[in-house]
Amino acid sequence: MRLPTVEDVARTARVSRQTVSNVINTPARVKPATLLRVQAAIRELDYRPNQSARRLRQQKSATIGIRLDPQLNGISGAVLDRFLHSLTEQATERGLRVLLFTAATPTEEIDQIRALRDGADVDAFVLTATFDHDPRPEWLIEQKIPFVTFGRPWGIDDLNDPQHRWVDVDGRRGVYAATLSLLDAGAERVAWIGWPPPTATGDDRRSGWEDAMRERLGLGDAELASLCTEVVDDVAEATNAVANVLAGAVLPDGMVCASDTLALGALIAASTAGRRDIPIIGFDDTPVAAALGISSVEQRLDQVAAGALALLLGPVGDSVVASGALDVAHRLIEPALVLRRPQDLPMFNPSRIDGTAAADKH
Amino acid sequence: MRLPTVEDVARTARVSRQTVSNVINTPARVKPATLLRVQAAIRELDYRPNQSARRLRQQKSATIGIRLDPQLNGISGAVLDRFLHSLTEQATERGLRVLLFTAATPTEEIDQIRALRDGADVDAFVLTATFDHDPRPEWLIEQKIPFVTFGRPWGIDDLNDPQHRWVDVDGRRGVYAATLSLLDAGAERVAWIGWPPPTATGDDRRSGWEDAMRERLGLGDAELASLCTEVVDDVAEATNAVANVLAGAVLPDGMVCASDTLALGALIAASTAGRRDIPIIGFDDTPVAAALGISSVEQRLDQVAAGALALLLGPVGDSVVASGALDVAHRLIEPALVLRRPQDLPMFNPSRIDGTAAADKH
Repeated sequence: MRLPTVEDVARTARVSRQTVSNVINTPARVKPATLLRVQAAIRELDYRPNQSARRLRQQKSATIGIRLDPQLNGISGAVLDRFLHSLTEQATERGLRVLLFTAATPTEEIDQIRALRDGADVDAFVLTATFDHDPRPEWLIEQKIPFVTFGRPWGIDDLNDPQHRWVDVDGRRGVYAATLSLLDAGAERVAWIGWPPPTATGDDRRSGWEDAMRERLGLGDAELASLCTEVVDDVAEATNAVANVLAGAVLPDGMVCASDTLALGALIAASTAGRRDIPIIGFDDTPVAAALGISSVEQRLDQVAAGALALLLGPVGDSVVASGALDVAHRLIEPALVLRRPQDLPMFNPSRIDGTAAADKH
Repeated sequence: MRLPTVEDVARTARVSRQTVSNVINTPARVKPATLLRVQAAIRELDYRPNQSARRLRQQKSATIGIRLDPQLNGISGAVLDRFLHSLTEQATERGLRVLLFTAATPTEEIDQIRALRDGADVDAFVLTATFDHDPRPEWLIEQKIPFVTFGRPWGIDDLNDPQHRWVDVDGRRGVYAATLSLLDAGAERVAWIGWPPPTATGDDRRSGWEDAMRERLGLGDAELASLCTEVVDDVAEATNAVANVLAGAVLPDGMVCASDTLALGALIAASTAGRRDIPIIGFDDTPVAAALGISSVEQRLDQVAAGALALLLGPVGDSVVASGALDVAHRLIEPALVLRRPQDLPMFNPSRIDGTAAADKH
């Protein structure tokens, strides 16, 4: 069974979709004969006008749809799960429901969204994992379907299009703060352990490290390149890559990593090389980082979820911390630096700088 | 706005809920005057009878509700997330939808289920985290709401009540297989690293280790107790506890753990003590175990999801592997042993038995 759509009514009454919409919203403007024919079709098909807008406004019984991707492996794979927990909890508090669906491709996701919209089952959508030339936002804007994306519209010019509401985490700023924290404590050769470019989020995070190193130490491209290691997001691969770095000519006195997976590899390599004294900061603040005591940059997914709902529904006790100068349709969330190991903390570092931390080598 | 319920119709028409149900399902049995009054109330309230049963039978547009708990920290917290991924993927393949809600207590969950049932929004429920004297199944059975639990009805006599459909993972059998694997390879002092009792799943897992040790080695209670360590599910606590074990008089030649969190603690303690040669097997096969190369017992959550849907909807290419002799309403899924480190594998162990593995100590 499929619920009747506005297209079904239009076909049955032999009018355009717009006319059906007029009958529902501004019946006084419709010719009486047409009005009667469309109303008859509405009754015949038992069509119910999409109540999304009203339900969303009232924030009652409205349903938010979100795609759940296949289980990602690895340590950072759980970030979107944690976002889903925050979103569901906050949506429930606001009287909303969360409906899950799956889709293998963006095209299939669009088909699913259309079906859920036509069935009047879902009133608004939260999209995740935005990417370069993502076809979904444009389609949703055309269709006038309320949505918000977790993720900036990468690869387009107008980040501030008010029709594309988005929330994102300021990865650049998080890595910038992590790098500054190490530089403030006296480090001078802070290495970047990142993913091979191009990746939208990876390149954004790296730019935070670059900016900090350029601003504070005046480093040029060649010097930055010599402090930069690119490796896929895998513990064993990262361990090998960082082992090579630690066996090289220029020994880093700090490491900032694009993910906790890379940070764990760096920690294993540093431990094996007897260099546990080198500070390491990961990204995502995963349960693994917490369990192993690895310092990390926290995405503050509760703030992301609050921001997404606020952009869809309007603020309710809205206390989102935006780090950029943003308008009402966009939120760039400032991440939090979570420092756990003594050697990652600013107060520990004087002993490291004057060389006494060599005692920590074994 | 709240959708009208059968209770609203009954109140408006001044009849019982049962009479409303009769009007909808067997109108010929209802007195004409009552029929007209109830039908008028149905029209007035715009009430739509619950189409759940039909939708479920047709497996089209039906919606399955599941509670999403607050984010659990720790390494094993993601097990229910991974189940949700499998469930959503398989439900979508069968044309079903998955709706999330949250609830702080079982009573609140029951309230949520009632509201979702009354609104005709959800057709069946999947319950997780069953516990001793869980009030939810009994209530759902009374209300004739279709449901299946991921988790046995712990603490009651009749595990085979056909009205309580459940799927569970045979933790006892998984740990039994893990222990036998180590004993087969020649180990004789396989330690159990588990949680303080009583915990339903923890005690069940421990019984697998006990059974294997009693059957193979004829150990008594005192000997088992001397090989058993109880510690909360925390890496640092487990590291300390296992460090004490390794510093003790009776050195284990294998460790089977109630979780990957405990296994990671055991691995860190063994590494620190220079005893990386001791085999270690965890439980859950988390992404952390995979990333760090720790052997583990896999819950096979895709099989759990398939079993849950099969019990709710009937089998569709049903290939669930049940390890117990179970009827059509219950599925006990046999876990899989995932061995990763050479020292955990049976073929590695001859060298360990004859003592040459001591070369692996440093």
